[in-house]
Amino acid sequence: MIVGIIGGGQLARMLALAGQPLGIECLFLDPAVDACARSAGELVCGAYDDESLLGVLAARADVVTYEFENVPATSLRYLAQRVRVHPSAEALGIARDRWHEKRLFAELGIPTPSFMAVDSWADCEQAVAAIGLPAVLKTRTMGYDGRGQRMLRSAADLKEGYAALAGMPLILEGFVPFDREVSIVAVRSAAGVTRFYPLTENLHKGGVLVQSVSRPADPLSAQARALASVLLDRLNYVGVLALELFQRGDRLLANEMAPRVHNSGHWTIEGAETSQFENHLRAVAGLPLGATGALAAAGMVNFVGQIPDPQAVLAVPGAHLHVYGKVPRPGRKLGHATVRAADETALYAALARLRALAGTAS
Amino acid sequence: MIVGIIGGGQLARMLALAGQPLGIECLFLDPAVDACARSAGELVCGAYDDESLLGVLAARADVVTYEFENVPATSLRYLAQRVRVHPSAEALGIARDRWHEKRLFAELGIPTPSFMAVDSWADCEQAVAAIGLPAVLKTRTMGYDGRGQRMLRSAADLKEGYAALAGMPLILEGFVPFDREVSIVAVRSAAGVTRFYPLTENLHKGGVLVQSVSRPADPLSAQARALASVLLDRLNYVGVLALELFQRGDRLLANEMAPRVHNSGHWTIEGAETSQFENHLRAVAGLPLGATGALAAAGMVNFVGQIPDPQAVLAVPGAHLHVYGKVPRPGRKLGHATVRAADETALYAALARLRALAGTAS
Repeated sequence: MIVGIIGGGQLARMLALAGQPLGIECLFLDPAVDACARSAGELVCGAYDDESLLGVLAARADVVTYEFENVPATSLRYLAQRVRVHPSAEALGIARDRWHEKRLFAELGIPTPSFMAVDSWADCEQAVAAIGLPAVLKTRTMGYDGRGQRMLRSAADLKEGYAALAGMPLILEGFVPFDREVSIVAVRSAAGVTRFYPLTENLHKGGVLVQSVSRPADPLSAQARALASVLLDRLNYVGVLALELFQRGDRLLANEMAPRVHNSGHWTIEGAETSQFENHLRAVAGLPLGATGALAAAGMVNFVGQIPDPQAVLAVPGAHLHVYGKVPRPGRKLGHATVRAADETALYAALARLRALAGTAS
Repeated sequence: MIVGIIGGGQLARMLALAGQPLGIECLFLDPAVDACARSAGELVCGAYDDESLLGVLAARADVVTYEFENVPATSLRYLAQRVRVHPSAEALGIARDRWHEKRLFAELGIPTPSFMAVDSWADCEQAVAAIGLPAVLKTRTMGYDGRGQRMLRSAADLKEGYAALAGMPLILEGFVPFDREVSIVAVRSAAGVTRFYPLTENLHKGGVLVQSVSRPADPLSAQARALASVLLDRLNYVGVLALELFQRGDRLLANEMAPRVHNSGHWTIEGAETSQFENHLRAVAGLPLGATGALAAAGMVNFVGQIPDPQAVLAVPGAHLHVYGKVPRPGRKLGHATVRAADETALYAALARLRALAGTAS
């Protein structure tokens, strides 16, 4: 069984590492000759819209998946005519555009912050009048890790933010003064079986995830599962999907979905019965899903811009190191550590030590 | 960090898969161009005694280890003069020769079956007279999975067995009508820290391991740990070591040691806090050891000669599949499944299903 993956970054690498024991070989399409996934599979090196290379993927792979949302729509259409693609082109098309995504959420009764499409300055003024400030102006496509976003608190922010982003299709979203950010990672098989990982509590800094903690007994679990469930069934989804949510009071609002394995699910590598990477491959390959329960109190700390000394990381009780083999650059996700602990006290102590090492302690 | 590994089979492959998240690259020396480990690291293809290739390993690797005992002594000497080798040449030299091994056990007060070296027919007759029948005649070196052994029950067996094996240095061992076969897998760091995995209960068929079950609360755990501990300290050992033992009544007798990761430790991949593969690499790379406790009731079933349908394997609750990417041949170890279960009842039910699939049910 060969799985083609569009993208050869850390998510593709972790998929390939999970695939080898299953007898699944991964074939990556990535323009970077040093794409970090190449250590665990075969790299087809070139542009994401190079039809000859997409043809190689279609010919050699039994099924194609992807590790990021910004796959050119034409590439996915080309592939979908020639080979099975999971998650579907429809799911990707919706997830890559914040406006389509929010419209689908609204259509399915999934609560969201207020939102309006912004294609001109007039739209922008109108949206602010309707939604109010503070609000967040975002590009509809190509944003990640807080990029392509401007927080608007005043009329001055509005002008500056619009000037910075204008020229791309935009969306204005009401700012939610959330109590907590959480995500629900789910997996659905080709046969329609859905399983949910425990709700995950996430902490971001500057738009970048710094810590995730699994919350198996969280009172909002059922609400999050219900929201994700509607989405998975509507999209006849196959694979792992992450739904990022804001908690305000006892209510969850959907922020965005990722039609792929997700950073907030990395704790599942050591923390769950079956990792999100293994389950994504099982789903797209048509194999039975593995159990998604947590094995213990579990969490994750991201290493961004620098990897701490492995000696120090591995000296933290219950810690497992995951480096991605990427060249360090400021702001770049280079690795993470997972922690599995006997109880929450031990878990939070270990996470605090790891965040001190990561430089994201406070 | 680059770890050189002599051998490119499944143990090397599983080491390399455990190494990638730690930022450890593996470089394998193996004469087979299709050595299965090559999917997870770099293959240096050639003979185990090719000095130019051993020179490549010595020059490029930070430390060298091995996945089997039958490494030529000259190769290990060549390497040891140029690069760190763990476990040491001394440990390997002892483990590769059953007579040296048993002599060391005796010297350290580790009980064994009766044994005598056999270099001639006269020796053989003398050994049988001293030890009695039934007994097992074995080659001192190069034996594995029951090969190079003859069970002797009668004078006729004796003649035939000696004729089949003569020409190599031999050892005669008293046959132990054991109640149970167990093994203790231990890991020792360069700093002298030793950790033990739970005692493992093993079942062999025709000399080949078919099933292992972890026994964290086994009454013989302390005895097994004490025996392994003496051995690790005497050898100033660095890395994973497996000690195979026979249980007779409430007493353990040492059968053999393996100075490497071991088939009876495969259950640790999903079943223990840290797998034997990760801990072997942590030890030889000078990193802190990970915890060795069991996460749940855990065990393993080997797939020999054929891999069952992955659909059926993964439908067994708690099962994880590990295929090695080797060409099938009768008697060849091609993969295994680990099981993690809530309790022993569920564990044994899952193991029984897997053994039915493996064709080793009864």
